Parts: sequence; structure tokens; C-alpha cells
Amino acid sequence: MGDGIFGGLPDSAEGELNAVLRDFVESKTLPLYEMMSYQLGWGREEGEAKSLGPPPRLHGGLTLATACASSGDYGPAISHAVSVEMMNSFWLIHNDIEDGNTERAGRPSVWWNWGPAQAINAGDGMHAMARLALFGLSEQDVEPKRVAMAIRALDEAAVKICEGEYADIANQERMSMTVASYLEMVDDRVGVLFGCAARLGALAVSEDADLADGLDQFGAKIGSARQLAEDYLTLWPTGERDTSQQGRMITKKKNLPVINVFATAEPKTKRLLGEMYMQRVLEPSVLDDVAQLCESAGGREVTRSEIDRLLHESDGGLERSGLDPQACDLLREAGRALVPPCS
Amino acid sequence: MGDGIFGGLPDSAEGELNAVLRDFVESKTLPLYEMMSYQLGWGREEGEAKSLGPPPRLHGGLTLATACASSGDYGPAISHAVSVEMMNSFWLIHNDIEDGNTERAGRPSVWWNWGPAQAINAGDGMHAMARLALFGLSEQDVEPKRVAMAIRALDEAAVKICEGEYADIANQERMSMTVASYLEMVDDRVGVLFGCAARLGALAVSEDADLADGLDQFGAKIGSARQLAEDYLTLWPTGERDTSQQGRMITKKKNLPVINVFATAEPKTKRLLGEMYMQRVLEPSVLDDVAQLCESAGGREVTRSEIDRLLHESDGGLERSGLDPQACDLLREAGRALVPPCS
Repeated sequence: MGDGIFGGLPDSAEGELNAVLRDFVESKTLPLYEMMSYQLGWGREEGEAKSLGPPPRLHGGLTLATACASSGDYGPAISHAVSVEMMNSFWLIHNDIEDGNTERAGRPSVWWNWGPAQAINAGDGMHAMARLALFGLSEQDVEPKRVAMAIRALDEAAVKICEGEYADIANQERMSMTVASYLEMVDDRVGVLFGCAARLGALAVSEDADLADGLDQFGAKIGSARQLAEDYLTLWPTGERDTSQQGRMITKKKNLPVINVFATAEPKTKRLLGEMYMQRVLEPSVLDDVAQLCESAGGREVTRSEIDRLLHESDGGLERSGLDPQACDLLREAGRALVPPCS
Repeated sequence: MGDGIFGGLPDSAEGELNAVLRDFVESKTLPLYEMMSYQLGWGREEGEAKSLGPPPRLHGGLTLATACASSGDYGPAISHAVSVEMMNSFWLIHNDIEDGNTERAGRPSVWWNWGPAQAINAGDGMHAMARLALFGLSEQDVEPKRVAMAIRALDEAAVKICEGEYADIANQERMSMTVASYLEMVDDRVGVLFGCAARLGALAVSEDADLADGLDQFGAKIGSARQLAEDYLTLWPTGERDTSQQGRMITKKKNLPVINVFATAEPKTKRLLGEMYMQRVLEPSVLDDVAQLCESAGGREVTRSEIDRLLHESDGGLERSGLDPQACDLLREAGRALVPPCS
């Protein structure tokens, strides 16, 4: 994945974001904030010191990148980037409980370490703090109207994400989901927060509505494309299959190639896959069989074609933004870096 | 409890609040919003139609009451009241999961009906929507600065509540908690949202900081007193003990009379109560024994005395608000109605 979104930014940007983010959660000394700091990639595992360093800040980086492309300066968007990273982390904490993920970025997930009750609570705290990060702007003489616009963007995104998450959980035990409704769910669950991240960068430096809407579209489509690439690479990884990296599939969360079989394959193929999905959990050992069935139904081509469509629509967002061609090129490249190649 | 906070308001207030609240969650047709509507007291149980009517809107009512006392009109505070009720409901949904409560207001709790994953998600949606309710104000020409102040009050309250909730969960399996730290936890976990509710009513109609701070204090202390009265009545109910109404005790969440034993009683009494709390869950059958031990350590008097202190501090908040004596009297009476008598 390389540097991802930070590739298009000055070298100082990622470090600055991490410093402010860390200060924001570690300025409080209560144990509640230790969980937040841990989720953000700092702190230590219980029992042993372990420092993997923080994960890439894809959402916050996107915020800084769109601000920089729009105005030449990412500085005014630091609080916005902190805010969207807090929002993403809140969602990951709750999502790990909902999906039963015991690991996150190579460490035990928050609920696995502290139990589900404290993890629900830590996520709620980060959800509220995501907005408090923006109130610091009022103290920097940013107009209240612009603070309110940023908060509203976050809350509208949060509600959409919950709608997408509802569909994702509801479809966990169902086979009959259309490709269109799956793609809508991906847009809500994943695309929306990337779109919001890109919008926040625009809102930080400008009041131009086309700029904000265009960059939102750019980010949202990149986010959805990234999820479909993840769907693809879970089934058809580059290199050897690592059966411990089964991701969402173990709990039978759907992905595009699987939905494509249930929606379009011939009855025999559907039935074979259906039998695998009748198991309580999907064992890693059947992953090769699932991948083969999905491939026989054209899942590779369908997924790649949807990714191409999304990247095209993402480019459309950049055009709509009204940014000059050079800025568009930089963002296009940064966006593409978030979508791993599927070959 | 009688009419609670609505006693001091025009007859139309409660109905108007419920109509706007219902419209707010039911204007969306996705299943996610059915869970929210159910939590707010509407909808039906799975399998059988059952309408108990919505529960009293204590927080929203307090918001309307302080707005009315401050300006003679509760109308400008309807959105604020919707917002604080959404916040309270979000918190109850998550709290019921965290505490393992299978019932809420005489019906299965949301997680008991829809499972914990969807319930976490529905709570998150209500958390975000709590703020969106306030953005409607911008469309009613309320200054953005005032919208932002209301949102900030909500978010600061939400973070405090999470801090209190952390302490509550962390102390579930511990005996050594001081009375002071228990009272601080009650202030955070329960008092803060009542304080925020009262503050929102002030913010809806005025920019006077003393008014907002004074009414916040008034509401917060009433909220904490209400929790202590609940602690008291769980152990020493008015009339016969209903063993199904064990509330937080079954999961060994602490209450003031119990903390008072662990903090101040003679070693023998502590040990007896400690043995009861060594059980995995506290069976309803031992409730009489717990109550007797708490009584022998002076728990009735300690709890009543703390409630009196809180009511006194609540009155101090009214004085600080600068409201005229007649308005103070109305609010004092409405506040007292939220704290059931402990005799």
C-alpha cells in the first residue's frame, strides 16, 4: 500500500496529525482514555510491551490531502483530521464487537482486551470526542457556522454508516441479497466516511459547496473501491493464501464475489456455496473452495469491473470539485494508492 | 412519580415533544429506525401488539421546563428536548447491553430483541441523530454559534457519562470504593445528563452564562439525588419488596448503602456482605439480607443525608441562575418531583 494518502502531502503532515491525535486522547489520565490510545495504535498490550507504531491514518490523511490540494496548506485541517480519525476508531471498536473480531492491526481488539462492556463505552467516548476535537476550532477564531458544517458532515456520515451496518448485520445469515443492495451497503458502511474525510478537508479551507461535494464524491468512491479490492484479495490474494487473514468471511459477512454467486450463478453453483454458508462459521479450510466457486461465476471480472466503475466515478468527483488539473492529478494519485491492485 | 417535570409546564408540552420525537425517528423507513422508535416506547413487541405508551420524558421535560421558566416559552427548546431524549435513549440502549438488562420499561430491551450487534449499532445511530436534531435549528434561523454551544454541551456531557460508566463497570467486581468516588461516579453517570438537559433549556432561550451554569447545577444535582433515591428504594422499597425489581444489583453494580458498608462498617459486617458479593450474580433471595446489613451500618441515614445535600446544592444552582423567585419555585417543585421520597 506504500504511503497511501500521505504520498501527496508534505513529509511533516503524518507526524503532525499523530502528535495532535495522541495529545488529544492522552491529555486525559483516566483509564477510559488508555483504551482510546490503544485503539489508535499506542500503549502496550497487557503483560508485554509491544509497539507496532500507529496504523496509517487513511481518513485523516485524506482530509489533509484535500485541504492541501484545495488551498496549498493542510494546517487548517488538522482538527478535522483528528476528528475523522476519532470517528473511524469509534466505529472500528464497535465493529470489532459486532463482528466478533478478536484482533485489530496485529493486536487483540479493544473488546478482547477489556471486555465488551468497556469497549462499547470506550467507543461511545470516542464518538463524542470526535466532535469535541472540532470545538477547538472555535477557539482558533474559526466561524461557528463553519464548525457547525463540519460537525454536521460527521453526524450525517455517522447515521449513514449505521444504516449500512444494519444491512451488513441483517444480511449475515441471508443468501438473497442483490448486487445493487450489496454495493449500496458498501457505499454506506465504508465509502461514506472516506467521503466525509475528503469533505472535511474542503470545509476546513473553503466555503465552496461544489468543492466540498465533489471531493466528497471523490473520497466516497475511493473508499468503496478499497472495500471491493479487499473483498477480492480475501478470496484471491496476491501470493500465498494466509488462512488466518480471513477477515469478515469467518462470520459469513458478505462480499461482492459471494453475493454475485447467490444473485447470478446457475442453481448448482448457488447450492454448493449455500451449503458452505449453512455452517455456523465459515472455516478457513473451505476458503479455497469458496474462491473457486466465486471464480467460476465470474466473480473476479465482476469485482474488477465494479472497482473500475468506482474509480471512474471518483474521477468524476474531482472534475466536479473545480480544482485545477495539477491538484486533481495529485489527489487522483493519492486516491489510487488507497485501492490495492487486483490481478 | 406523578407527572414529574411536566407538572410545571403547560399541558401541551409533553404531547408536542412526543410528536416531534416520533416524527424525527419515524420519518425514516429503514429497519434501523424501528429499533429507535421501539426504544422510545413506540412500536410493538415481536409477535404481539403491545402498547404501553411512551415512558415519561424526564430529560426532555427538564429542558422544556427550564426554557419555560427562563423565558415563559418552551417552544424554542423543543429541538433541544428531542436531542437530549435521543442522547438518553442511545445511552440506555448501550447501558442495557453493558449491564445485561433483558428488560427496559416493561418490555424486552433492544439488545434482547434484536441481538447485541444491532443494538450497539442502533445506539450509535441515536447518538449521531441526537446532534442532527439540533441542526434543524439552523434552518429556523438560530445563530450557528448557539447551535454549536448546544452541541458542545451534549458532547461534553457524553464524554463525562462515558467516564462515569467506565468507573461503574470497573467497580462491578471490586469492593474497595470510597463513598466519595461512588458519588462522583453517580454525578458523571447520571447527574451530568440531567444537568445538560437543564442547560439546553437555558441555551435555547438565552445567552446568559450564569443562567446556563446555574440551571446545569440545578439539574445535575436533581439527577444524582434521583439515582440515590433509586439506590435506597431498591433496598428499602415502599411497601412489599418485588424481587423481580432488583435493578442494577443482580450484576453487582454498586449502590450507596452497599459502598457505605464496604467503606465504613466494622470488619464482621464487611465480611458478611463481601461473601454475598463473591457470588457470580447476586440472587434476589439474598436481597433482604443485604438490606439488613446495609441498614445496620447506617445506610438509610447516609443515603438520605446525601440526597438532602444534593437537593440543597440543586437549590444553590437555582439561586445562581438569577431567575426570579417565582420561576425558581416552579423549577424547585418540578425537580423535587423527580426524586421519590425515601422513608
